Amino acid sequence: MTTATEIVNEFWRLMATNDFDAVTTILSDDFVWELPQSKELVRGAKNFAQVNREYPANAPWQFEIHRVFGSDTEAVSDVTVTDGVQTARAISFFTIKNEKINRLREFWPEPYAAPPGRAHLVEVME
Amino acid sequence: MTTATEIVNEFWRLMATNDFDAVTTILSDDFVWELPQSKELVRGAKNFAQVNREYPANAPWQFEIHRVFGSDTEAVSDVTVTDGVQTARAISFFTIKNEKINRLREFWPEPYAAPPGRAHLVEVME
Repeated sequence: MTTATEIVNEFWRLMATNDFDAVTTILSDDFVWELPQSKELVRGAKNFAQVNREYPANAPWQFEIHRVFGSDTEAVSDVTVTDGVQTARAISFFTIKNEKINRLREFWPEPYAAPPGRAHLVEVME
Repeated sequence: MTTATEIVNEFWRLMATNDFDAVTTILSDDFVWELPQSKELVRGAKNFAQVNREYPANAPWQFEIHRVFGSDTEAVSDVTVTDGVQTARAISFFTIKNEKINRLREFWPEPYAAPPGRAHLVEVME
Protein backbone atom coordinates (compact mmCIF):
# COMPACT_ATOMS: atom_id res chain seq x y z
CA MET A 1 0.00 0.00 0.00
CA THR A 2 1.19 3.47 -0.90
CA THR A 3 1.39 5.69 2.17
CA ALA A 4 -0.13 9.16 2.42
CA THR A 5 3.39 10.58 2.62
CA GLU A 6 4.44 8.80 -0.59
CA ILE A 7 1.38 10.13 -2.42
CA VAL A 8 2.15 13.67 -1.24
CA ASN A 9 5.76 13.39 -2.39
CA GLU A 10 4.43 12.25 -5.78
CA PHE A 11 2.05 15.26 -5.81
CA TRP A 12 4.97 17.68 -5.40
CA ARG A 13 7.07 15.78 -7.97
CA LEU A 14 4.24 16.20 -10.48
CA MET A 15 3.63 19.86 -9.50
CA ALA A 16 7.32 20.53 -10.25
CA THR A 17 6.79 19.41 -13.87
CA ASN A 18 4.31 22.34 -14.14
CA ASP A 19 2.09 19.91 -16.11
CA PHE A 20 -1.01 20.35 -13.98
CA ASP A 21 -3.01 17.80 -15.99
CA ALA A 22 -0.42 15.23 -14.92
CA VAL A 23 -1.14 16.14 -11.29
CA THR A 24 -4.82 15.29 -11.76
CA THR A 25 -3.91 11.59 -12.25
CA ILE A 26 -3.41 11.30 -8.47
CA LEU A 27 -6.52 13.33 -7.50
CA SER A 28 -9.86 11.57 -6.88
CA ASP A 29 -12.92 12.27 -9.04
CA ASP A 30 -14.55 14.12 -6.13
CA PHE A 31 -11.39 16.06 -5.25
CA VAL A 32 -11.88 19.33 -3.35
CA TRP A 33 -9.30 22.09 -2.81
CA GLU A 34 -10.03 24.38 0.13
CA LEU A 35 -8.33 27.74 0.75
CA PRO A 36 -9.69 28.83 4.16
CA GLN A 37 -7.93 32.23 4.18
CA SER A 38 -9.77 33.45 1.06
CA LYS A 39 -12.77 31.18 1.68
CA GLU A 40 -12.34 29.67 -1.79
CA LEU A 41 -13.31 26.12 -2.66
CA VAL A 42 -12.35 24.53 -5.98
CA ARG A 43 -14.26 21.40 -6.89
CA GLY A 44 -12.83 18.75 -9.17
CA ALA A 45 -9.37 17.83 -10.45
CA LYS A 46 -9.92 19.61 -13.78
CA ASN A 47 -10.67 22.94 -12.06
CA PHE A 48 -7.63 22.47 -9.81
CA ALA A 49 -5.44 22.14 -12.91
CA GLN A 50 -7.06 25.16 -14.56
CA VAL A 51 -6.64 27.46 -11.54
CA ASN A 52 -2.97 26.50 -11.41
CA ARG A 53 -2.49 26.94 -15.16
CA GLU A 54 -4.15 30.39 -15.15
CA TYR A 55 -2.29 31.74 -12.09
CA PRO A 56 0.12 34.46 -13.31
CA ALA A 57 3.68 33.11 -13.32
CA ASN A 58 6.94 34.68 -14.49
CA ALA A 59 8.59 31.30 -15.09
CA PRO A 60 7.92 27.62 -14.23
CA TRP A 61 7.11 27.09 -10.56
CA GLN A 62 9.77 25.47 -8.39
CA PHE A 63 9.06 23.82 -5.06
CA GLU A 64 11.32 23.34 -2.04
CA ILE A 65 9.90 20.71 0.30
CA HIS A 66 10.79 21.45 3.92
CA ARG A 67 8.79 18.64 5.47
CA VAL A 68 6.21 15.95 4.69
CA PHE A 69 4.72 13.48 7.14
CA GLY A 70 1.44 11.78 7.79
CA SER A 71 -0.72 9.05 9.17
CA ASP A 72 -2.52 6.39 7.09
CA THR A 73 -5.10 8.70 5.53
CA GLU A 74 -3.74 12.20 6.13
CA ALA A 75 -0.49 13.99 5.39
CA VAL A 76 0.84 17.52 5.65
CA SER A 77 3.59 19.34 3.80
CA ASP A 78 5.51 22.57 4.34
CA VAL A 79 6.75 23.83 0.98
CA THR A 80 8.28 27.02 -0.45
CA VAL A 81 6.96 27.90 -3.92
CA THR A 82 8.73 30.30 -6.29
CA ASP A 83 8.75 31.34 -9.92
CA GLY A 84 11.99 33.24 -9.36
CA VAL A 85 10.14 36.53 -8.75
CA GLN A 86 7.25 35.66 -6.42
CA THR A 87 7.96 33.43 -3.41
CA ALA A 88 5.36 32.00 -1.04
CA ARG A 89 5.04 29.29 1.58
CA ALA A 90 2.31 26.66 1.37
CA ILE A 91 1.16 24.54 4.28
CA SER A 92 -0.93 21.78 2.69
CA PHE A 93 -3.18 19.25 4.45
CA PHE A 94 -3.96 16.24 2.25
CA THR A 95 -6.68 13.64 2.83
CA ILE A 96 -6.20 10.32 1.03
CA LYS A 97 -8.97 7.97 -0.14
CA ASN A 98 -8.30 4.82 -2.19
CA GLU A 99 -4.68 5.91 -2.74
CA LYS A 100 -5.74 9.20 -4.34
CA ILE A 101 -5.82 12.73 -2.96
CA ASN A 102 -9.41 13.43 -2.04
CA ARG A 103 -9.07 16.79 -0.31
CA LEU A 104 -6.42 19.48 -0.05
CA ARG A 105 -6.81 22.23 2.54
CA GLU A 106 -4.08 24.78 1.95
CA PHE A 107 -2.74 27.76 3.91
CA TRP A 108 -0.43 30.48 2.59
CA PRO A 109 1.15 32.23 5.62
CA GLU A 110 2.80 35.58 4.82
CA PRO A 111 5.76 37.19 6.61
CA TYR A 112 4.87 39.67 9.39
CA ALA A 113 6.86 42.00 11.65
CA ALA A 114 7.90 40.56 15.02
CA PRO A 115 5.54 41.90 17.72
CA PRO A 116 7.13 44.64 19.86
CA GLY A 117 8.19 44.24 23.48
CA ARG A 118 9.51 40.70 23.50
CA ALA A 119 13.00 41.06 22.04
CA HIS A 120 14.43 40.05 25.44
CA LEU A 121 12.79 36.61 25.04
CA VAL A 122 13.41 36.07 21.35
CA GLU A 123 16.30 35.31 18.99
CA VAL A 124 16.37 35.94 15.26
CA MET A 125 15.69 32.72 13.36
CA GLU A 126 18.21 31.86 10.62
CA MET B 1 4.00 4.58 24.46
CA THR B 2 2.26 7.93 24.15
CA THR B 3 1.82 8.93 20.50
CA ALA B 4 2.78 12.30 19.07
CA THR B 5 -0.93 12.99 18.50
CA GLU B 6 -1.77 12.26 22.15
CA ILE B 7 1.00 14.59 23.33
CA VAL B 8 -0.28 17.37 21.06
CA ASN B 9 -3.84 16.93 22.33
CA GLU B 10 -2.45 17.23 25.86
CA PHE B 11 -0.56 20.40 24.80
CA TRP B 12 -3.81 22.05 23.67
CA ARG B 13 -5.66 20.84 26.79
CA LEU B 14 -3.01 22.52 28.94
CA MET B 15 -2.96 25.67 26.77
CA ALA B 16 -6.71 25.97 27.35
CA THR B 17 -6.13 26.23 31.12
CA ASN B 18 -4.15 29.43 30.32
CA ASP B 19 -1.63 28.20 32.91
CA PHE B 20 1.43 28.38 30.68
CA ASP B 21 3.75 27.00 33.37
CA ALA B 22 1.62 23.84 33.32
CA VAL B 23 2.29 23.58 29.57
CA THR B 24 6.05 23.52 30.20
CA THR B 25 5.72 20.12 31.94
CA ILE B 26 5.39 18.49 28.50
CA LEU B 27 8.16 20.53 26.82
CA SER B 28 11.74 19.23 26.73
CA ASP B 29 14.59 21.09 28.43
CA ASP B 30 16.00 22.09 25.04
CA PHE B 31 12.59 23.09 23.64
CA VAL B 32 12.62 25.55 20.73
CA TRP B 33 9.64 27.52 19.36
CA GLU B 34 10.08 28.76 15.81
CA LEU B 35 7.91 31.41 14.13
CA PRO B 36 9.16 31.48 10.51
CA GLN B 37 6.90 34.34 9.39
CA SER B 38 8.42 36.82 11.87
CA LYS B 39 11.78 34.99 11.96
CA GLU B 40 11.48 34.68 15.75
CA LEU B 41 12.97 31.83 17.74
CA VAL B 42 12.18 31.34 21.44
CA ARG B 43 14.55 29.04 23.29
CA GLY B 44 13.47 27.13 26.37
CA ALA B 45 10.16 26.16 27.97
CA LYS B 46 10.34 29.03 30.49
CA ASN B 47 10.61 31.65 27.73
CA PHE B 48 7.74 29.97 25.86
CA ALA B 49 5.54 30.38 28.94
CA GLN B 50 6.62 33.99 29.44
CA VAL B 51 5.94 35.04 25.82
CA ASN B 52 2.45 33.52 26.13
CA ARG B 53 1.84 35.13 29.53
CA GLU B 54 2.92 38.58 28.30
CA TYR B 55 0.96 38.49 25.03
CA PRO B 56 -1.88 41.07 25.31
CA ALA B 57 -5.19 39.26 25.89
CA ASN B 58 -8.69 40.59 26.55
CA ALA B 59 -9.81 37.39 28.29
CA PRO B 60 -8.54 33.82 28.71
CA TRP B 61 -7.55 32.19 25.42
CA GLN B 62 -9.86 29.55 23.99
CA PHE B 63 -8.82 26.99 21.41
CA GLU B 64 -10.89 25.17 18.80
CA ILE B 65 -9.01 22.16 17.43
CA HIS B 66 -9.90 21.48 13.80
CA ARG B 67 -7.44 18.67 13.24
CA VAL B 68 -4.49 16.84 14.82
CA PHE B 69 -2.56 13.97 13.28
CA GLY B 70 0.96 12.67 13.18
CA SER B 71 3.55 10.00 12.74
CA ASP B 72 5.71 8.53 15.54
CA THR B 73 7.83 11.61 16.16
CA GLU B 74 5.94 14.44 14.45
CA ALA B 75 2.44 15.83 14.64
CA VAL B 76 0.59 18.82 13.22
CA SER B 77 -2.46 20.71 14.43
CA ASP B 78 -4.84 23.23 12.89
CA VAL B 79 -6.37 25.34 15.65
CA THR B 80 -8.41 28.53 15.97
CA VAL B 81 -7.36 30.74 18.89
CA THR B 82 -9.53 33.48 20.35
CA ASP B 83 -9.82 35.67 23.43
CA GLY B 84 -13.30 36.74 22.34
CA VAL B 85 -11.97 39.88 20.60
CA GLN B 86 -8.94 38.72 18.63
CA THR B 87 -9.19 35.53 16.58
CA ALA B 88 -6.33 33.81 14.76
CA ARG B 89 -5.53 30.47 13.20
CA ALA B 90 -2.42 28.52 14.21
CA ILE B 91 -0.87 25.74 12.15
CA SER B 92 1.59 24.06 14.52
CA PHE B 93 4.25 21.47 13.67
CA PHE B 94 5.44 19.53 16.73
CA THR B 95 8.55 17.36 16.98
CA ILE B 96 8.54 14.81 19.82
CA LYS B 97 11.61 13.47 21.64
CA ASN B 98 11.39 11.12 24.64
CA GLU B 99 7.64 11.77 24.91
CA LYS B 100 8.12 15.53 25.26
CA ILE B 101 7.68 18.34 22.76
CA ASN B 102 11.15 19.24 21.57
CA ARG B 103 10.32 21.70 18.82
CA LEU B 104 7.28 23.70 17.73
CA ARG B 105 7.30 25.44 14.35
CA GLU B 106 4.21 27.58 14.12
CA PHE B 107 2.47 29.48 11.30
CA TRP B 108 -0.28 32.09 11.67
CA PRO B 109 -2.04 32.44 8.30
CA GLU B 110 -4.20 35.56 7.95
CA PRO B 111 -7.33 35.99 5.80
CA TYR B 112 -6.76 37.49 2.34
CA ALA B 113 -9.03 38.57 -0.53
CA ALA B 114 -9.74 35.94 -3.19
CA PRO B 115 -7.53 36.64 -6.24
CA PRO B 116 -9.49 38.20 -9.14
CA GLY B 117 -10.38 36.45 -12.36
CA ARG B 118 -11.11 32.95 -11.15
CA ALA B 119 -14.65 33.21 -9.82
CA HIS B 120 -15.82 30.89 -12.64
CA LEU B 121 -13.68 28.10 -11.14
CA VAL B 122 -14.30 28.76 -7.46
CA GLU B 123 -17.12 28.40 -4.92
CA VAL B 124 -17.37 30.22 -1.61
CA MET B 125 -16.22 27.98 1.24
CA GLU B 126 -18.67 27.67 4.16
